[in-house]
Amino acid sequence: MNAQISIVMGSISDWSTMKLTGEILDKLNVPYEKQVVSAHRMPAELMKFGQTARERGIKAIIAGAGGAAHLPGMLAANTIIPVIGVPVQTHALGGMDSLLSIGQMPAGVPVATMAIGAAGARNAALMACEMLALNDDALADRLVDYRKQQHDAAVESSAHLE
Amino acid sequence: MNAQISIVMGSISDWSTMKLTGEILDKLNVPYEKQVVSAHRMPAELMKFGQTARERGIKAIIAGAGGAAHLPGMLAANTIIPVIGVPVQTHALGGMDSLLSIGQMPAGVPVATMAIGAAGARNAALMACEMLALNDDALADRLVDYRKQQHDAAVESSAHLE
Amino acid sequence: MNAQISIVMGSISDWSTMKLTGEILDKLNVPYEKQVVSAHRMPAELMKFGQTARERGIKAIIAGAGGAAHLPGMLAANTIIPVIGVPVQTHALGGMDSLLSIGQMPAGVPVATMAIGAAGARNAALMACEMLALNDDALADRLVDYRKQQHDAAVESSAHLE
Amino acid sequence: MNAQISIVMGSISDWSTMKLTGEILDKLNVPYEKQVVSAHRMPAELMKFGQTARERGIKAIIAGAGGAAHLPGMLAANTIIPVIGVPVQTHALGGMDSLLSIGQMPAGVPVATMAIGAAGARNAALMACEMLALNDDALADRLVDYRKQQHDAAVESSAHLE
Amino acid sequence: MNAQISIVMGSISDWSTMKLTGEILDKLNVPYEKQVVSAHRMPAELMKFGQTARERGIKAIIAGAGGAAHLPGMLAANTIIPVIGVPVQTHALGGMDSLLSIGQMPAGVPVATMAIGAAGARNAALMACEMLALNDDALADRLVDYRKQQHDAAVESSAHLE
Amino acid sequence: MNAQISIVMGSISDWSTMKLTGEILDKLNVPYEKQVVSAHRMPAELMKFGQTARERGIKAIIAGAGGAAHLPGMLAANTIIPVIGVPVQTHALGGMDSLLSIGQMPAGVPVATMAIGAAGARNAALMACEMLALNDDALADRLVDYRKQQHDAAVESSAHLE
Amino acid sequence: MNAQISIVMGSISDWSTMKLTGEILDKLNVPYEKQVVSAHRMPAELMKFGQTARERGIKAIIAGAGGAAHLPGMLAANTIIPVIGVPVQTHALGGMDSLLSIGQMPAGVPVATMAIGAAGARNAALMACEMLALNDDALADRLVDYRKQQHDAAVESSAHLE
Amino acid sequence: MNAQISIVMGSISDWSTMKLTGEILDKLNVPYEKQVVSAHRMPAELMKFGQTARERGIKAIIAGAGGAAHLPGMLAANTIIPVIGVPVQTHALGGMDSLLSIGQMPAGVPVATMAIGAAGARNAALMACEMLALNDDALADRLVDYRKQQHDAAVESSAHLE
Repeated sequence: MNAQISIVMGSISDWSTMKLTGEILDKLNVPYEKQVVSAHRMPAELMKFGQTARERGIKAIIAGAGGAAHLPGMLAANTIIPVIGVPVQTHALGGMDSLLSIGQMPAGVPVATMAIGAAGARNAALMACEMLALNDDALADRLVDYRKQQHDAAVESSAHLE
Repeated sequence: MNAQISIVMGSISDWSTMKLTGEILDKLNVPYEKQVVSAHRMPAELMKFGQTARERGIKAIIAGAGGAAHLPGMLAANTIIPVIGVPVQTHALGGMDSLLSIGQMPAGVPVATMAIGAAGARNAALMACEMLALNDDALADRLVDYRKQQHDAAVESSAHLE
Repeated sequence: MNAQISIVMGSISDWSTMKLTGEILDKLNVPYEKQVVSAHRMPAELMKFGQTARERGIKAIIAGAGGAAHLPGMLAANTIIPVIGVPVQTHALGGMDSLLSIGQMPAGVPVATMAIGAAGARNAALMACEMLALNDDALADRLVDYRKQQHDAAVESSAHLE
Repeated sequence: MNAQISIVMGSISDWSTMKLTGEILDKLNVPYEKQVVSAHRMPAELMKFGQTARERGIKAIIAGAGGAAHLPGMLAANTIIPVIGVPVQTHALGGMDSLLSIGQMPAGVPVATMAIGAAGARNAALMACEMLALNDDALADRLVDYRKQQHDAAVESSAHLE
Repeated sequence: MNAQISIVMGSISDWSTMKLTGEILDKLNVPYEKQVVSAHRMPAELMKFGQTARERGIKAIIAGAGGAAHLPGMLAANTIIPVIGVPVQTHALGGMDSLLSIGQMPAGVPVATMAIGAAGARNAALMACEMLALNDDALADRLVDYRKQQHDAAVESSAHLE
Repeated sequence: MNAQISIVMGSISDWSTMKLTGEILDKLNVPYEKQVVSAHRMPAELMKFGQTARERGIKAIIAGAGGAAHLPGMLAANTIIPVIGVPVQTHALGGMDSLLSIGQMPAGVPVATMAIGAAGARNAALMACEMLALNDDALADRLVDYRKQQHDAAVESSAHLE
Repeated sequence: MNAQISIVMGSISDWSTMKLTGEILDKLNVPYEKQVVSAHRMPAELMKFGQTARERGIKAIIAGAGGAAHLPGMLAANTIIPVIGVPVQTHALGGMDSLLSIGQMPAGVPVATMAIGAAGARNAALMACEMLALNDDALADRLVDYRKQQHDAAVESSAHLE
Repeated sequence: MNAQISIVMGSISDWSTMKLTGEILDKLNVPYEKQVVSAHRMPAELMKFGQTARERGIKAIIAGAGGAAHLPGMLAANTIIPVIGVPVQTHALGGMDSLLSIGQMPAGVPVATMAIGAAGARNAALMACEMLALNDDALADRLVDYRKQQHDAAVESSAHLE
């Protein structure tokens, strides 16, 4: 089955974060591709990637990057499919730089920004699925199930306090 | 035509920001509803709002709030349709509090966070339209047109330097 | 003896912080209950928890959460008994996100915010006891004693400088 | 009727914020006193104020201060009645300095920290009332009514969106 | 005479800051061009601008942008001539977002970041001139003169203290 | 010989930082005393300590504290001898809380704030010595020597690059 | 009478802040000089100023600067008399840049950092006087009087609450 | 061959960061010198270093420093050759202090600020080479090659995702 979601990242070092996105998509049975697309080292590929994603059948792009994280915003500048940005945690500033570089987009070109780091990577997958589920009832059901599992696990965890 | 997008906000004072969302949706011809749903003063309504939005045919919720902005996250906790959060600028901290309260969601319940203030309010509308456009080619065309208009206006503006 | 204080937290992972709250309550001989109530994964339970706490005889709720920490504020929105919030330290931003998400509540629904992390967890117990002690002279005496022990330990510690 | 709540502030310039506390207490019919007690210019009075508040029948102290805001913490160090701190907004740093100086108390001496500025001043009054209402059913009823009024006003405000 | 320096900015609204760059270049008699090149609304033009700047004889690009300011970094990704970035002040966060989005570039693609706002815009011109002066002794002399004028004005200003 | 400098700290845990102050004073041959004086657990002792320091012959107080660090400011409120504050590094916020709690003193009661952590602890000793050296030429000579040693060590260190 | 204190500032624009230093010194009858010494535009004068201050009979230097505020630290590097730094408030970042540039000095060269802006300018004068008062009993008495006036004014201000 | 670039740092402890600058310059075959020049411990040498760098044939100075990092700015105050600043990461504040102390230079004296830490150290070398390459076509070719290698490595890295 063709990829519906594309996971891209600015550097192979972001993969330890972004693979969490892949794990959630696997769990929810949504096909995806994954790729390094560096905004700063591969700008021509970035442009082409953004411009062709829609015609390739991609429904949403999930882009992880850290520091002066330009990847999500530049992809968004080149496509009208939703771009979801994951601010990768950074050593010096904890990811505040990533968060502001991804989150503070100017009017006209939106990026759906997630939390810094692992939580953001997981939620990016869920947000993408929520978008797809607007026209995929089976996926919507799987999302409802996933929420129920989370709920039940949280309820159950109370028994383990001490 | 029934509303496809729901604009909600924590307080009537957020409307000066959130009406910008409405203006973009008007321009792109997407029907929407608007409502004050205070997380802290109307928690029961918030719950019901989140739980029934999908069955009412709403495709995405755009929620604006400031300070300890719980509205977007609590709506997201009650629905599987996409929730887009707009951090409203605050007097004391500029909206950093709003940004972190909306953006730093834990794994499991995603909120698509936009920029602080006016830019975020506008982009929330565009992000919602990008989601709808995944299954609405006419809207996709309007988004492409909108981007082109922005592009042309930016290009043209150079002539006005000095 | 029935619980007078309720310790709740957003995730079992917060327990390493929140158990310090329990230790102080044990020391001061105040009965308490403890439970995971996730704002985002258990919103219905959260609502019910808040709405019924007072009738169950709970005098104060101590709620610990991290990141976009909505638990204390949403409990406060559902009850008029005091809610004490403990911002749990976070990996990326040190707990600044937790502090602002709990502390920057809008007018109308108060949360008594404590310091980030362990100090806050301990002080939450003491604040709850101070509230109860307004009508419990024996507990007031135990608080006075606890302060005296702290004082004496601090005085005594000077002898151990080198 | 004797004051049950004491509103103190570090400087007369804090009164524009702290009078909002008084307005809520007036509305909820709770008697209070008000006073300037500067931690840095009146340290002896501060000490005595803290040490005697309980025997004077005060049930809670609400202390507003800005910058290196030592007043709430030093009062808390001298009494076991609850101290509620209001971080006053500052010109240079927006009140982040006040928030951290009040909020980051060490273990052993709790301060119930509110939001920066006007919202915090209002919520301090409500938090104090919630404490008193633990043993004052009539006040509890007034608090429930106040919440209902807020709720109704929020619901009603939706009609005024444009 | 052909432009040696290119001043670009993300939006016409940045011109009130960036015209200060032009004023210094005028004073130092260095020819320049100026243009709006929006990273997000004109990504194709940005690419081409970066790729052709060197062959057009441009020696340094000065790029001003605010918020998630991607312009300087994306230009730098497309050229090996020096790119100097000016973080434009922003309403919500004062320009901290601009500073981090421009300044925290990953290894491999440098941007010479200046101070936020007017000081940065002026210094960008001076930094560009310092680069050109490495091979232009007359310009070096003008820079030395400019420094001397600044020095003399600072010395002279002491006389106006009261 | 009687102590001229008093090193105080809010907690025995601050000693690992503040002992660096002692080491510099030892090196410069200035007699000092050291003591735990907790602002929050020993407020009465703090008051007395501040009020009597001058008559005891103390020339400067060096006070280290972390978090809502009230010790330096409250000592300053009780004496007219110089108080030097050392913001101790904190786990959650790195010491930004300590820095603002000590540094942002209101007009009227000064604290000489040093850098966060070890550098600040060392510089507190040097600042105290600079004050004493205003009337102690032998100490002034030792300070000049100390500066010269630092200078020589810095110059010499260049040889060890690689 | 010869100046005992030297007020210096990086720019004439800092005078609106630093004149408050002068007003306090006038009130306490301590002779002072004032001068613009720009670290960046007058580095040679800065060096000489620092190196000769002591032999000219200056007892303490009060240096105000904003942004990348190098003046206090570079003066401190050139003298062993105490340097007191005043972080001037800045437009973009409120003075956080000034505070860190002055406050975070490395071990070896201390600067006594005051609060940002007006409060810091006033306290710089008081700190300098506290240093001089170590050997000037009359000045010590004036400082005690000044404190008493502040105390009395604070006490008296309570009468003006409403 | 004579050094064209000078790498200086405030302390030998900065070398672990700044040696990355040297590695890039080695790779690009640009001769450089390296030296400790402490702004605070070696101010006279700093002055002379800045004043003579140009006549010694140095084309650009790369200066790394942490905390209240005055080295880059003070060098810039003493020369008209370009100064590139590298904010070294700090323990307490992650390097935010270094970034602001280097980046927020006042108008008149520019410093080309790089990212905090290792990325900044590497990019400083590349920025210096970009300046030299304006008049060195062979170096320009090496820079183009270096970019191509980076590009190819980024493209190739995609194959290693999982």
